[in-house]
Amino acid sequence: MASSLLTTPSQTLAPNPAAARARRSSPAAAQVSFSSPLLPGRRALRVRASVAIEKEVPEKEAPTTFLREDGSGAGSGSVRERFEGMIRRVQGEICAALEEADGSGKRFVEDVWSRPGGGGGISRVLQDGNVFEKAGVNVSVVYGVMPPDAYRAAKGAAKNGAADGHKAGPVPFFAAGISSVLHPKNPFAPTLHFNYRYFETDAPKDVPGAPRSWWFGGGTDLTPSYLIEEDVKHFHSVQKQTCDKFDPSFYPRFKKWCDDYFYIKHRNERRGLGGIFFDDLNDYDQDMLLNFATECAGSVIPAYIPIIERRKDTPFNEEQKAWQQVRRGRYVEFNLVYDRGTTFGLKTGGRIESILVSLPLTARWEYDHKPEEGSEEWKLLDACINPKEWL
Amino acid sequence: MASSLLTTPSQTLAPNPAAARARRSSPAAAQVSFSSPLLPGRRALRVRASVAIEKEVPEKEAPTTFLREDGSGAGSGSVRERFEGMIRRVQGEICAALEEADGSGKRFVEDVWSRPGGGGGISRVLQDGNVFEKAGVNVSVVYGVMPPDAYRAAKGAAKNGAADGHKAGPVPFFAAGISSVLHPKNPFAPTLHFNYRYFETDAPKDVPGAPRSWWFGGGTDLTPSYLIEEDVKHFHSVQKQTCDKFDPSFYPRFKKWCDDYFYIKHRNERRGLGGIFFDDLNDYDQDMLLNFATECAGSVIPAYIPIIERRKDTPFNEEQKAWQQVRRGRYVEFNLVYDRGTTFGLKTGGRIESILVSLPLTARWEYDHKPEEGSEEWKLLDACINPKEWL
Repeated sequence: MASSLLTTPSQTLAPNPAAARARRSSPAAAQVSFSSPLLPGRRALRVRASVAIEKEVPEKEAPTTFLREDGSGAGSGSVRERFEGMIRRVQGEICAALEEADGSGKRFVEDVWSRPGGGGGISRVLQDGNVFEKAGVNVSVVYGVMPPDAYRAAKGAAKNGAADGHKAGPVPFFAAGISSVLHPKNPFAPTLHFNYRYFETDAPKDVPGAPRSWWFGGGTDLTPSYLIEEDVKHFHSVQKQTCDKFDPSFYPRFKKWCDDYFYIKHRNERRGLGGIFFDDLNDYDQDMLLNFATECAGSVIPAYIPIIERRKDTPFNEEQKAWQQVRRGRYVEFNLVYDRGTTFGLKTGGRIESILVSLPLTARWEYDHKPEEGSEEWKLLDACINPKEWL
Repeated sequence: MASSLLTTPSQTLAPNPAAARARRSSPAAAQVSFSSPLLPGRRALRVRASVAIEKEVPEKEAPTTFLREDGSGAGSGSVRERFEGMIRRVQGEICAALEEADGSGKRFVEDVWSRPGGGGGISRVLQDGNVFEKAGVNVSVVYGVMPPDAYRAAKGAAKNGAADGHKAGPVPFFAAGISSVLHPKNPFAPTLHFNYRYFETDAPKDVPGAPRSWWFGGGTDLTPSYLIEEDVKHFHSVQKQTCDKFDPSFYPRFKKWCDDYFYIKHRNERRGLGGIFFDDLNDYDQDMLLNFATECAGSVIPAYIPIIERRKDTPFNEEQKAWQQVRRGRYVEFNLVYDRGTTFGLKTGGRIESILVSLPLTARWEYDHKPEEGSEEWKLLDACINPKEWL
């Protein structure tokens, strides 16, 4: 589905379908270009990459909350507050589970940053462990207002390039998310990516009739170098179980969305073997969707750690390692060329190290590499070219 | 110079400044999107990436010329013909020099392709030699006409999105070039890139008043992992000597253009230590510029091979190899994120293996890697952040 390729970045906070046309060039979306590393990928935003970006400031330690009590949601029991609590709890749980699986005694290194305009983030990275080549688990909670200039530019864009003389006030926004990529060393242990995010925009202060809106996005997907059906079925079945608790349409819909999004167009192949991906989600009860995102994030450990335990010590040879490195090259191609969060982040000056922590420690590009038909490498590639139903 | 970043891809055939505004959205430029791997990178062309691309066809062997006698320039002594002759001769000479320097007995593997609409190309790759990790030397000669639909789209784009009802005829174009990236194994032996290209467009058949135009582009640049002043000075002095034979303004102008073009914005550093880069060049005698491009291409061997001979056997340790790999990661970032020829080629369906042969065999991304101040690694990085005058 080409349209989803254009509108659904993995690290993106994108609009709901109902209001998509209006919001595609809305100030709220443009506002997010000031936040890092949670970045939007709306196509319309590309033109605004020249808007000045607020740089992040390093902090010594993480605050209890990135929210403030002056209306940003602290202490209110709001969805903002509950979402921040969830992603920070999940970050801790997943890092602990990964450290235990790694077994090297290495600990995640933490970088905390804040954003003068509002909010901040925590990047955690474990590099060159026993099991993991590179594992990054980031959270960010950013909010603030968009400057009137950007709002006018956005309004102009909405009118097909024609600006009007209306002077608008700042537009409040809120964006929070958890984002993670885990690259194991063993070529039989798959790479995992997940990302869950929540977004709010408010009416511009001088447009009382404009709607306040919110939406959820995210997903979890698996990128193996070898196709081990037992692992892929386990992974997809956990995703389906999680989805089915909320709506029987979720798994088939979000599974297809995932296959469509992680598409390396110039290779005509997917980055991996999929999982679930959704965006613009607001046509359900807000509490229900908060619970859904929470369950999805909570299912990362049961979906992934059993696979890692089974594969982390599988013997492998040099050719198998080289094939893993070729697939890592494809991962780099997808992230640098197509992933909207990454490409937009690079162009707008997000925290580079947080954005590029998704890249593998090592990758490889062989000229015109083609696996022999019927080989194990070919089977994986075939499944990336022709997405399958795993359940 | 930000504008040059937007308009001067290393593999791009871009318009001359005099007619830049008109041609930026011209059918001739759009036409090139049908050719591969010589691709344009005009910003305005991005919107036209959905235009169907003619796929290349593999050929058993290279023809004597890719031109035809029916007006495409064969047998005419034209600049087209002389440029094709030059790039094909240079491809042969450089591949022979590289095979000799490599000393492994390995030979370049050749892939020939043609384009039903007109022309074709020859890709030559030497991988995993003694000295070279990956060396690619490609030529292509493509020409034809742009379909009226694309022409109308281009005309519409020139009018700020408004299409008119005027039905136009096809627009003839011609594009030829040589493009090469050489990645040695030894971390003290630098990577080299060069690319020389010639472009012509003709008036659309129903617009007799529109001008026929032509321009040259290209450059040669050096990307070391360690700063060895002797090597960089040698490389730049060969570039300057070549430039000075034609115009004393060329070296300073094209040296700065090179520093500006190979800029990794999200890192605030250049890919390497520069060389020369030019584009849109048509404000000199056409024969003089053909001679200049010929001399530039001919200076690749004397500029590079002596450095390779000096550094190919330098002892190195694991840390130095890892640093080379980190710099290779930056090479990948530049090529996939910024290089207009690469990004446009990927989006429009050029011959992927020819386009991505520029990527290194292996690369590395360490989280938040910062060389110690004053170290040899830091000195290289400093020179990439603050371009120097080498002569």
